[in-house]
Amino acid sequence: MLSLLGEQIWGKMSLRAQKRPEEQRPTVFRRRYPRPWNLRSEKMERSGEAKPLEAIWQAYKEAVKAEGSNRAQALYQEMVWPHLLALWKTEPRVRPMQKEFRVSIHTLGTSPEATILAILGAGAEKVYVLHTAESERYLEQIRKDTGKEIYPIRIGKSNVARIYEEVHRLLKEIAQGGGTLKAVSQGEETPVALDITSGTKAMSAGLAAAGFFFQRFYKNLRVVYVDNEEYDTELRRPRAGSEALFLLPNPHEVVGEVDAFFARELYSNRDFSGAADYFKRLVGKTNQLKYALYNTLCEMYANWWALDFKNASKQGEGLLNQLGKDSNLNHPLARHMGRLQKQVDLLREADAFVSSKDLGRSKGVLGVVATLLRLSEEEKRPFLKALYAYRALELLLQERLYRLHGRRADEPNLSPGEREKLQAELSSILSEEARVGKRLGLLDLFAFLRVLGDPLLKGESLEEVQGLSGAVQARNASLLIHGLEVPSEKQVDIILKKAKRLRQELERQVRFQPDLEPIDLEF
Amino acid sequence: MLSLLGEQIWGKMSLRAQKRPEEQRPTVFRRRYPRPWNLRSEKMERSGEAKPLEAIWQAYKEAVKAEGSNRAQALYQEMVWPHLLALWKTEPRVRPMQKEFRVSIHTLGTSPEATILAILGAGAEKVYVLHTAESERYLEQIRKDTGKEIYPIRIGKSNVARIYEEVHRLLKEIAQGGGTLKAVSQGEETPVALDITSGTKAMSAGLAAAGFFFQRFYKNLRVVYVDNEEYDTELRRPRAGSEALFLLPNPHEVVGEVDAFFARELYSNRDFSGAADYFKRLVGKTNQLKYALYNTLCEMYANWWALDFKNASKQGEGLLNQLGKDSNLNHPLARHMGRLQKQVDLLREADAFVSSKDLGRSKGVLGVVATLLRLSEEEKRPFLKALYAYRALELLLQERLYRLHGRRADEPNLSPGEREKLQAELSSILSEEARVGKRLGLLDLFAFLRVLGDPLLKGESLEEVQGLSGAVQARNASLLIHGLEVPSEKQVDIILKKAKRLRQELERQVRFQPDLEPIDLEF
Repeated sequence: MLSLLGEQIWGKMSLRAQKRPEEQRPTVFRRRYPRPWNLRSEKMERSGEAKPLEAIWQAYKEAVKAEGSNRAQALYQEMVWPHLLALWKTEPRVRPMQKEFRVSIHTLGTSPEATILAILGAGAEKVYVLHTAESERYLEQIRKDTGKEIYPIRIGKSNVARIYEEVHRLLKEIAQGGGTLKAVSQGEETPVALDITSGTKAMSAGLAAAGFFFQRFYKNLRVVYVDNEEYDTELRRPRAGSEALFLLPNPHEVVGEVDAFFARELYSNRDFSGAADYFKRLVGKTNQLKYALYNTLCEMYANWWALDFKNASKQGEGLLNQLGKDSNLNHPLARHMGRLQKQVDLLREADAFVSSKDLGRSKGVLGVVATLLRLSEEEKRPFLKALYAYRALELLLQERLYRLHGRRADEPNLSPGEREKLQAELSSILSEEARVGKRLGLLDLFAFLRVLGDPLLKGESLEEVQGLSGAVQARNASLLIHGLEVPSEKQVDIILKKAKRLRQELERQVRFQPDLEPIDLEF
Repeated sequence: MLSLLGEQIWGKMSLRAQKRPEEQRPTVFRRRYPRPWNLRSEKMERSGEAKPLEAIWQAYKEAVKAEGSNRAQALYQEMVWPHLLALWKTEPRVRPMQKEFRVSIHTLGTSPEATILAILGAGAEKVYVLHTAESERYLEQIRKDTGKEIYPIRIGKSNVARIYEEVHRLLKEIAQGGGTLKAVSQGEETPVALDITSGTKAMSAGLAAAGFFFQRFYKNLRVVYVDNEEYDTELRRPRAGSEALFLLPNPHEVVGEVDAFFARELYSNRDFSGAADYFKRLVGKTNQLKYALYNTLCEMYANWWALDFKNASKQGEGLLNQLGKDSNLNHPLARHMGRLQKQVDLLREADAFVSSKDLGRSKGVLGVVATLLRLSEEEKRPFLKALYAYRALELLLQERLYRLHGRRADEPNLSPGEREKLQAELSSILSEEARVGKRLGLLDLFAFLRVLGDPLLKGESLEEVQGLSGAVQARNASLLIHGLEVPSEKQVDIILKKAKRLRQELERQVRFQPDLEPIDLEF
């Protein structure tokens, strides 16, 4: 809709512009553009039509018919352009809605009119024009017609790299709050329009590419272009007055399903709960139930890696159930039924072990241990790395003591002879008088298994065992437990190495190798 | 360089094509394009020139001069195009280097020749053409000239949304391994070219936008276009033979400094060590030492949030030192000297406390506690959330006992009367007979402060205190400590709430509020 204001001004202009002295005309018309207001269209405009340019267009068409099509361009410049320009100065058409830009950057080819409309449509206070040697001569017309300061930047017509660099440079300047423009860091980003209407394909493509690339970092950036909404088939050219500045939507806004890509990106970075959120939204957005199964898969993994085996195995069972249904036979996840089944089995075993605390559930212990070891490997912060590794090793020793000797760390029922031997072993490891408590801690367990002649641990040198002892003490003195230390990488490695050896032995025992890799996402 | 093969074929074609029967000509010429091999240029070609099209172009120029410029287009079609086409079928020119595409997608406007060259340049086995109602009529010529199957997709000339959707649909199909194309999940992505040469600006912009957007998820996607490298000023048109298919580089490859944006992205996601890596690379890439200071800042934060206060404060001191130099007076970080100074002070205090274990360093305790509480708030996994919160509360109670009563948790020196009262207090909290050990754990500390009449803790109801007791026990039974449980959110909240109250009291005491927010990055 052209607003009332637009119509009023338009009416004034066409009826009285010729007669009024310069200073009495509304500000917006005190410009230096040519003003041969074409009187042929006056009658139609006086009738108060909603689209004043229609009359002008009709008059123009008649003139082209009368004077011949080789005069079309000249007639357009004379009869149509001034009106179009005046209209855009007060009422630029912007689709899908008006947006206030503070900066606009334009490529310029050999049709300056489109760029002029784009500059008026964007309405920015700072205007940069990327021009070529050829198109430099239009800069003056653009300054005159828009009444704005223009900052020209000369580039080669095929030099997309240069365009990237210029856009990058300008965005940096803007982000640093150059001039009156707000800085990114102050919370609100300066709105910037990149207009690709004019220029060679390479120039437009370069600017569009820069725009969509930098949008990742600079959210208030829009790629825009001027297009016509109507085509005059008789004249075989776009209809004047049907121009609009279009803000190119972000593909993400248009293609809701793109969220699936974002979900996959998070998934591959092991942010399963982030991915689950995306899939959940996708079900609502697309009404496609297939995404619900991905959501369940992600929640299963999210719970798994948060050590919540109960909910992880529940999710897993639900997923298998769904995949077993006829309606889901073609679901991409159905191709991975075998692997999924094994993973859910492992989660179920881990949950059964954790819930029952029954160390006889060796496969469950293996599931928990493998999870802790993977967490330790992935973690970068040494205090957490140590914690995971320590707990994995402790569980492995507990399982081993129970499996091979039927003893439990929290109730070891030591015979007097065993207690004596264990105390001697510990004292030699720690090089000081040692005392055995009610429960066996990690180092006690290790020493006790050696006392019991464990084939795997017996053979280690005292030096090796002392290394372990130091590492264990470092964990207990950790800033995160009761002390104020941060374990060293070397200490963590000692624990990890030991744990991995025991884990391998357990895998051989259980005849099972846990598969901890997330299922591939394909859709 | 046109290879030998290209020259040989070119030579054969121009010399003998007219005389040879269809079946004897090399395979590459058994196509259905018009073959009026223009004999005017034969002489020049026979001389074995490196650029055979040069001769043809000269002949074409002469013909235009002789027959008039209104015949230019027809003469081009007759004299130049068939040769150009034949050349591109064997030796397409691709810049910066040849790349094998498996799929290509093209916008099509009213100049099919450019699209034909793009199809031959991309050399894909699957070719999709996004055409309008107007440009549909060129499909046949494209099929004929390229000799390829074309999959037409009709769109509106201004409908960028539709282009996004089509590209998305096609990429999904490709990723699912439709036909002979490799699936993303099989590790290697099918190379796809998006050619924006032909079509309206809206179509090209839409395709470019889709390309650069989806490149984030689909790495083997390239936006390409055909451009001319030379212009014939006499004829005022691009010189035939100087065409090339350009692979539009990713702005990231061109503008190395863009890494600063990636660094900032990681920084705002609190991945400080990832950001540090980017800044380190930037110093090498740009030779700008200013990035070294950002690198140090990131390393300081990375160490801080990994609880390594020693290295964090060292980095901080180094940074302040650098920023104090004249040469860095204008560094953007220099504007934040005040805040930085305070953060480094806090880190120094925290390090001094952790190194000396001196609970009298209240500000250092506050620094460590504030860090642990922030870690707990940010952590999503309950078992870690609990661990941070628990350790923060324990430290606060230790500091309090020391500050108000000069006692230490690891050596409480309880009088017989105190021991008795503490045991009674603990027994009433736990509703069972309690024993006080050599050191005071978290709950012991809490109970002992109550026994000592602590004004802040004394007033709490037994019910409240019992809630805390449950939460503390849950932490000790955590899967990550010695048990097999995962603490609940509610239990963590109880600990956090208690810790925050004590922290506020400590802040009042020390008259200091830690500033844990990372400094804004501006560059």
